[in-house]
Amino acid sequence: MAIYQRVALIGLGLIASSMAHAIRQFGLADHIAGHAKSPETRVIAKEIGLCDSIHATAAEAVMGADLVVLAVPVGAMAAIAAEIGPHLRPGTTVTDVGSVKQAVIDAVGPKMLDGVHFIPGHPIAGTEHSGPRSGFATLFRNRWWLLTPLPGADPVPVARLRGFCEAMGANVGEMEAAHHDLVLAVTSHVPHLIAYTMVGVADDLSRVTDSEVVRYSAAGFRDFTRIAASDPTMWRDVFLTNKEATLEILGRFTEELFALQRAIRTGDGQLLFDYFTHTRAIRRGIIEAGQDTAAPDFGRAKAEG
Amino acid sequence: MAIYQRVALIGLGLIASSMAHAIRQFGLADHIAGHAKSPETRVIAKEIGLCDSIHATAAEAVMGADLVVLAVPVGAMAAIAAEIGPHLRPGTTVTDVGSVKQAVIDAVGPKMLDGVHFIPGHPIAGTEHSGPRSGFATLFRNRWWLLTPLPGADPVPVARLRGFCEAMGANVGEMEAAHHDLVLAVTSHVPHLIAYTMVGVADDLSRVTDSEVVRYSAAGFRDFTRIAASDPTMWRDVFLTNKEATLEILGRFTEELFALQRAIRTGDGQLLFDYFTHTRAIRRGIIEAGQDTAAPDFGRAKAEG
Repeated sequence: MAIYQRVALIGLGLIASSMAHAIRQFGLADHIAGHAKSPETRVIAKEIGLCDSIHATAAEAVMGADLVVLAVPVGAMAAIAAEIGPHLRPGTTVTDVGSVKQAVIDAVGPKMLDGVHFIPGHPIAGTEHSGPRSGFATLFRNRWWLLTPLPGADPVPVARLRGFCEAMGANVGEMEAAHHDLVLAVTSHVPHLIAYTMVGVADDLSRVTDSEVVRYSAAGFRDFTRIAASDPTMWRDVFLTNKEATLEILGRFTEELFALQRAIRTGDGQLLFDYFTHTRAIRRGIIEAGQDTAAPDFGRAKAEG
Repeated sequence: MAIYQRVALIGLGLIASSMAHAIRQFGLADHIAGHAKSPETRVIAKEIGLCDSIHATAAEAVMGADLVVLAVPVGAMAAIAAEIGPHLRPGTTVTDVGSVKQAVIDAVGPKMLDGVHFIPGHPIAGTEHSGPRSGFATLFRNRWWLLTPLPGADPVPVARLRGFCEAMGANVGEMEAAHHDLVLAVTSHVPHLIAYTMVGVADDLSRVTDSEVVRYSAAGFRDFTRIAASDPTMWRDVFLTNKEATLEILGRFTEELFALQRAIRTGDGQLLFDYFTHTRAIRRGIIEAGQDTAAPDFGRAKAEG
């Protein structure tokens, strides 16, 4: 059953294209309008029939929509909000899928006229692929979709948006924007930065060739390369806009890393053993919560075979 | 066709149990003798019929073997070598599967009598699981198996061991022990240490609960928890015995990390974007070399579905 009449997807990358597939599959809207800044992306979206209509401007795409989804890099949110703001009719819900929430609130909030319900959101889902062809309907299944409604938000449109996310298979949670940004710094932003760094180190090391790095990557390194293959624009914007929380967690990370480094230098095997034992429990928790597969090696053998 | 008559597997964890399955499947030995220090492991190994004979001591297991595989944590190699040394008949090949090579050479080499061919080795393969039940015959398929023969090693037993590894599906490479230890510090040891550290930070942070970390782990963090769930004893020994190379690469890592941290602090989006673009190429190389799956998210959806 359709939850919205006309959904406008602004930006047609992995998240928006997955939403398009899920909306179709579960019949959640009567019409899906789409816009992407890049003409190439719009051509591909038309070619694969991703949306019911594709528009050259965001302003055109949002006309008559009762749900607008901003699915562009966080750094592009302010300009898009300024462009579409005057064209939204009262009662429209505007949400976004940015990985950082306070910066999006600051960028988008002031551009929303009275009567428009701006409800920031973030689906905790993704793959290392990007672009309009990378989406699939089940991306959100059993993943969390966090909403960070502003103080005093009207509960009716929030409940409607929640139902829409749930209908795509997600578990919906609500929290404050600042807390969201700290939690994601830990579970996403700093892990990505570290992965990018490790891949950069391996690539730059003159005494170990790139072909050696590639050949022997199955020993652990290749896991880092997956997340270090994520979209560069999106990640640049995440770090620029979630600066404070990222730097805080990075500080904690280097502190811990130095403690382990010192244990290696001084030969403190007991400290290392205890540390490595402790971290196993978190993995078990993640598997029990259905947030990862228990299959060895993420089930790669099955995927490859 | 059997390449060895009697293979003795000392230690019955992930690698040795995978070898047992592969040896059986491809008919590479007439008899597989096994030993594990832990009585529980020996009971399980008997129960699942992992080997043709299970022995309470390593000395007993190696009797009459023409290939002995030391598959114990690196820190346990010296004691095992001292125990079995006097019981090896001339012409026997001894290899190991340790993740560090120079330390194993120092620990094992002096205990090998004349006429015994000691050829250190390291299969670049594994999963986050451990123990005698975790093995499977295809673990080595299209993975690299590095041999680090000592200067002046007899080429005939080296070629035979190479053929044995290839028959289990591996690509075999040869390099010097010191270079191996540096390469693995980059592709394995430091990535593991970083993953352990990140998981430790997430677990300790009082402002973010463990259940939040678990719920929202699909945003990147869960990838780290897989390798941080690896065997603690094995990894303690790796860091204690590959100290120099690990500390060197860690130094490079923190240097790079600080450069990115500074770019975040100063808002240098161009530096971040360029860095994140650059690292994508390595991922492509790994997939093209058949060292990882191109399926999104390591093919997890397939594994879960």
